[in-house]
Amino acid sequence: MPPLRLRGVLAPVVTPFHSDLSVAPERLVRHCQWLLAHGCSGLAVFGTNSEANSLAVEERIALLEALVAAGVPADRLLPGTGCCALPDSVKLTAHAVQLGCAGVLMLPPFYYKAVTDEGLYRSFSEVIQRVGDDRLRLYLYHIPQVAQVPITPGLIARLLQAYPRHVAGIKDSSGDWNHTRAVLDATAGSGFDVFVGSEVFLLQNLRAGGVGCITADANVNPHGIDAVVRNWQSPQAAELQARADQVRQTLQSVPLLPALKAVIAHFAGDPAWATVRPPLVELAPAERAALLTALGELGFQMPE
Amino acid sequence: MPPLRLRGVLAPVVTPFHSDLSVAPERLVRHCQWLLAHGCSGLAVFGTNSEANSLAVEERIALLEALVAAGVPADRLLPGTGCCALPDSVKLTAHAVQLGCAGVLMLPPFYYKAVTDEGLYRSFSEVIQRVGDDRLRLYLYHIPQVAQVPITPGLIARLLQAYPRHVAGIKDSSGDWNHTRAVLDATAGSGFDVFVGSEVFLLQNLRAGGVGCITADANVNPHGIDAVVRNWQSPQAAELQARADQVRQTLQSVPLLPALKAVIAHFAGDPAWATVRPPLVELAPAERAALLTALGELGFQMPE
Repeated sequence: MPPLRLRGVLAPVVTPFHSDLSVAPERLVRHCQWLLAHGCSGLAVFGTNSEANSLAVEERIALLEALVAAGVPADRLLPGTGCCALPDSVKLTAHAVQLGCAGVLMLPPFYYKAVTDEGLYRSFSEVIQRVGDDRLRLYLYHIPQVAQVPITPGLIARLLQAYPRHVAGIKDSSGDWNHTRAVLDATAGSGFDVFVGSEVFLLQNLRAGGVGCITADANVNPHGIDAVVRNWQSPQAAELQARADQVRQTLQSVPLLPALKAVIAHFAGDPAWATVRPPLVELAPAERAALLTALGELGFQMPE
Repeated sequence: MPPLRLRGVLAPVVTPFHSDLSVAPERLVRHCQWLLAHGCSGLAVFGTNSEANSLAVEERIALLEALVAAGVPADRLLPGTGCCALPDSVKLTAHAVQLGCAGVLMLPPFYYKAVTDEGLYRSFSEVIQRVGDDRLRLYLYHIPQVAQVPITPGLIARLLQAYPRHVAGIKDSSGDWNHTRAVLDATAGSGFDVFVGSEVFLLQNLRAGGVGCITADANVNPHGIDAVVRNWQSPQAAELQARADQVRQTLQSVPLLPALKAVIAHFAGDPAWATVRPPLVELAPAERAALLTALGELGFQMPE
């Protein structure tokens, strides 16, 4: 049976490392449990802000198994499985489906630039066919400013036509509401679920027929962002959106990914949480101090 | 003992696939042997034009072992080992060193954009330290138009200062002679070897103190390009350079990587050689025919 569709707030869960840069599964499990208890309806592990592409394929497999073994419900998991190499994407996608994950979030292969839609269609199509499992729910991951390889409306249409049961939706991280709006309009009524990649567009997305957001800031502010989802039809919706935006703006005053880890390290009282793998670099002490001060001024907390 | 330094013409060897997209090691061995017999002094397997990032780590390891097992001399091999994930780069680099390869050609981690030189320094430094082998000779791979992550002069200087024995040179695929010239000037006398990424700059590079080129076109025209190297101080040098440039110009009239495979397929009488992995796409029949006609008009051959 295919899993239920995810909606609401998903976190691209940051991946904790030990100080020697090895992965720290026990910290990941605790963080995932905290996220689900505080407003996340799903966990988009192995996204951009998870340093997924800084992990080996076997590390991703081992971490996903550790999560499920620890009791994190597989039907809340939306792991990233899109790699440059087709065999890697197939292996990770098949593994996620076999574990019972709600779906997978797939980057296009991102090494070659200016590739054709035909080539990208073949990439996704080969994964779907080689995995060959009716339970597969594939969400496309459009993040052109990082991947430098866009998922065009024409590609979406072609994949939806060929694989209507498997192609389930998109995470649009373009940061361009007009683009999101065009995707919503083009896919309306088809059961194609549109997540925005930033909570800034969350209320707009819900009002326009989208299903939620998959946003880095949900790693530390799941409760604040989920408040928008729970109240989106109420008179307070705009105020709740503005409050979430304020936290986001503060987080984005420094490099975001190390900022998220620094905030978690602070509230967990666990300095090793701040570790990132190269080529990323942790916050400088002054950046960290300024960020925590600014969040303190907003009254921001990560409740236990 | 560290291997001798490579010079002259190196091919980023195209990787053959069966029609089911699996790798074809026996074809790769034959092509590598042909290249060494026809002008290549070295083989930069697993480069951009090798579809290296479309291969899984285990596929790269198995192919490299197949080459050495078939008698391709390890001291002629310069495999690409730079991946997005540090554990992958360490594994591939250590493996290449243990096999006795002449060196490795390392892309920077290329998923995150706008990363700092500090982060890139840590990436290369961690690989060098974790491999921990005096035989390692690391060549930096600067290809900003594809990787979108440049190797800056400042980064080169810092790596050379920290690891003067390990950091052996660069492949500059910027296509910007002023950049290559600046790198040559900045590293003159340090034993840092500069390869250009296109034979178009070969003669200029040799005259300015560079050691050769690592160029896709060497997959089909190693003899024509090597003629420039063998005669670079003779009066015919410019004419030989112009002849090589003409072949290059013709190859680049269509998408280059599938063009190389189409030309090899043609001269080998082996249509499956034309297979590429997505997101790349093979030449359309009309493109292929036009290319072969144009090469024929130049009198171009791949001799047996």
